[in-house]
Amino acid sequence: MNLTVFGFGSVGRVLCRQALDIGIGVVAVADSTGVLVSSNSSFSSEELNTISKAKESGKRLSDISTPTATLLQPLDAVDYIAKNSQSPVVADCSAYDDPSTYLLPALARNVPIVLANKKPLTGTMEDFLKLTERRDFIRLESTVGAGLPTMITLRRILDSGDEIKKVEGQLSGTLGYILSALQKGDKFSDVVVDAKAKGFTEPDPRDDLSGVDVARKALIISRCMGQSFNLSDIEIEALYPPEFEDISLDEFMSKLPELDEIVDDKVKSAKGKDKFLRYTATVKPEGIRAGLVEVEKASPLASLEGTDNLISFETKWYTSPTVVRGPGAGVEVTAAGVLSDCMDLYGSKVRTQWGNL
Amino acid sequence: MNLTVFGFGSVGRVLCRQALDIGIGVVAVADSTGVLVSSNSSFSSEELNTISKAKESGKRLSDISTPTATLLQPLDAVDYIAKNSQSPVVADCSAYDDPSTYLLPALARNVPIVLANKKPLTGTMEDFLKLTERRDFIRLESTVGAGLPTMITLRRILDSGDEIKKVEGQLSGTLGYILSALQKGDKFSDVVVDAKAKGFTEPDPRDDLSGVDVARKALIISRCMGQSFNLSDIEIEALYPPEFEDISLDEFMSKLPELDEIVDDKVKSAKGKDKFLRYTATVKPEGIRAGLVEVEKASPLASLEGTDNLISFETKWYTSPTVVRGPGAGVEVTAAGVLSDCMDLYGSKVRTQWGNL
Repeated sequence: MNLTVFGFGSVGRVLCRQALDIGIGVVAVADSTGVLVSSNSSFSSEELNTISKAKESGKRLSDISTPTATLLQPLDAVDYIAKNSQSPVVADCSAYDDPSTYLLPALARNVPIVLANKKPLTGTMEDFLKLTERRDFIRLESTVGAGLPTMITLRRILDSGDEIKKVEGQLSGTLGYILSALQKGDKFSDVVVDAKAKGFTEPDPRDDLSGVDVARKALIISRCMGQSFNLSDIEIEALYPPEFEDISLDEFMSKLPELDEIVDDKVKSAKGKDKFLRYTATVKPEGIRAGLVEVEKASPLASLEGTDNLISFETKWYTSPTVVRGPGAGVEVTAAGVLSDCMDLYGSKVRTQWGNL
Repeated sequence: MNLTVFGFGSVGRVLCRQALDIGIGVVAVADSTGVLVSSNSSFSSEELNTISKAKESGKRLSDISTPTATLLQPLDAVDYIAKNSQSPVVADCSAYDDPSTYLLPALARNVPIVLANKKPLTGTMEDFLKLTERRDFIRLESTVGAGLPTMITLRRILDSGDEIKKVEGQLSGTLGYILSALQKGDKFSDVVVDAKAKGFTEPDPRDDLSGVDVARKALIISRCMGQSFNLSDIEIEALYPPEFEDISLDEFMSKLPELDEIVDDKVKSAKGKDKFLRYTATVKPEGIRAGLVEVEKASPLASLEGTDNLISFETKWYTSPTVVRGPGAGVEVTAAGVLSDCMDLYGSKVRTQWGNL
């Protein structure tokens, strides 16, 4: 098996290291400046190390000259690996949104794809259907809950002919961290500043607080269930008012304390009913919602602490739901999820026996 | 895809119905008296219905004469389906322990197998290795936690090259039910009598209370991790003393109240430390244990109620563990787990698109 990794950020680089550790080759790595394709069957550990270090130090791949690699444009790179690489896989660890640049071309050349990138799956329904039309050619576990077995659980439930009544989950480690801190009595503005400082939020915390990232995950679940919703159909509750949307990051951070009382009222209102406040996504046959909910203290969602994710599947046969819980973010586990997906596509070429025998 | 179902009890019969519902054929069904093989490419819904009803009414398959089926011995049946069936799978829903009768012969003829039956995997290590030597030819999800995604989670973790530190779980719905009733203050003897009456225990409750069923599940996890333990290596704590082993069922049931105080002391001792008593299996690199443990009130295991199972995976990358929870027993979900496994082997022959699109 040989990987081509689009998006050579922290997840992409860890993925390459993990792949080499278990005997999977890396034949090409890409950022927005181009695709560095190995001139040999795959990169050696030393070559990858050199490229990774240069990239880490801020260089772009187009600036990294190595005698063992050629810089190609995405379409040419996909062409090359389809023709020259044994058991190729294109892994997308970028945040690029257009599937026609390398994902659909890979599929058209019978190269399977593995996505950690949510955007191509949450654009038009037409693109989603094109990307998923052959189940042997796509895996997408790390788009929802990082490496946690959420999408494989969904697929297994659907595969058995069971009927899904509701999928519900806390799908953002960042929002999970914030909500469990609020529950302990911390002030909203303090929690957001703290989470930003710890690197738990995106550089602009609004990217988490808007709820759009959660909504994208819910949309992937929904579409994989066979529903035809779009991002614009989702009722998304942001944790800030509309007038905070278009101001600068500095201004947003300085205005955060204005929201403390509003948020605190919601936390207290839940407490008054002996409940906890959580930010969840809910996917039902009738639609999708992402927003604050009050959950029973005895529920699995209430027991969540810190950045763990949780997703529950309520079905015709699972009236007591199947629940998956654990770290839903993190570089190592996200990359590991991508790697497990690759093994799911081609595993028997790498390992004959079950598990790690 | 076409199924041959060994073990035509409640799970086997529901499996056949579920399979037909999603367009998978059933070509043969078997009990201890023989294998009824369809003379056509597969049984019609009506034929299967007739056979199911006869079996349910207490008849053996050898007594059921139908113009569309022939009764064969297991080896001949496996031979026949290997030669005549399109995309064949042998599903084992029996409790038969000898893999050489039909499982290994199926593999030898390149027919993949799906197991809900724990016994063939928990006999000799040699048999385990023979059964699992080609990962494309075996699935075994329903041997641990019924249809819950436990073994697929384990496989994904192992596939990524992650390192497993500990697998721990409550793997018996029966013992889960009993322990959570004890926690509420019920008397051990009352709880066992009640669970037996409700059909939550095997006809002889010692089959659950011995801990051997839990130990078998732990052994499957351990062996799939690459460990080479045998059932005799496992430290198993039974919930009754050795002198209760060889007495009659009636005598056992009448002597149950003698155990109330002993069990009650353990429950109270845990409560004294502000903990809950649970019956769990633990698989670590150094060995396997099945028995009572005192767990923290805030732990996921403590939050379990009733018959739900829970399994947690602690690894190098998942220091906060990945946890799977839900109904770990039941006819519908066990059969659904077998069916999802079949789809995992041949899914793209039945469904092109991801999920149920």
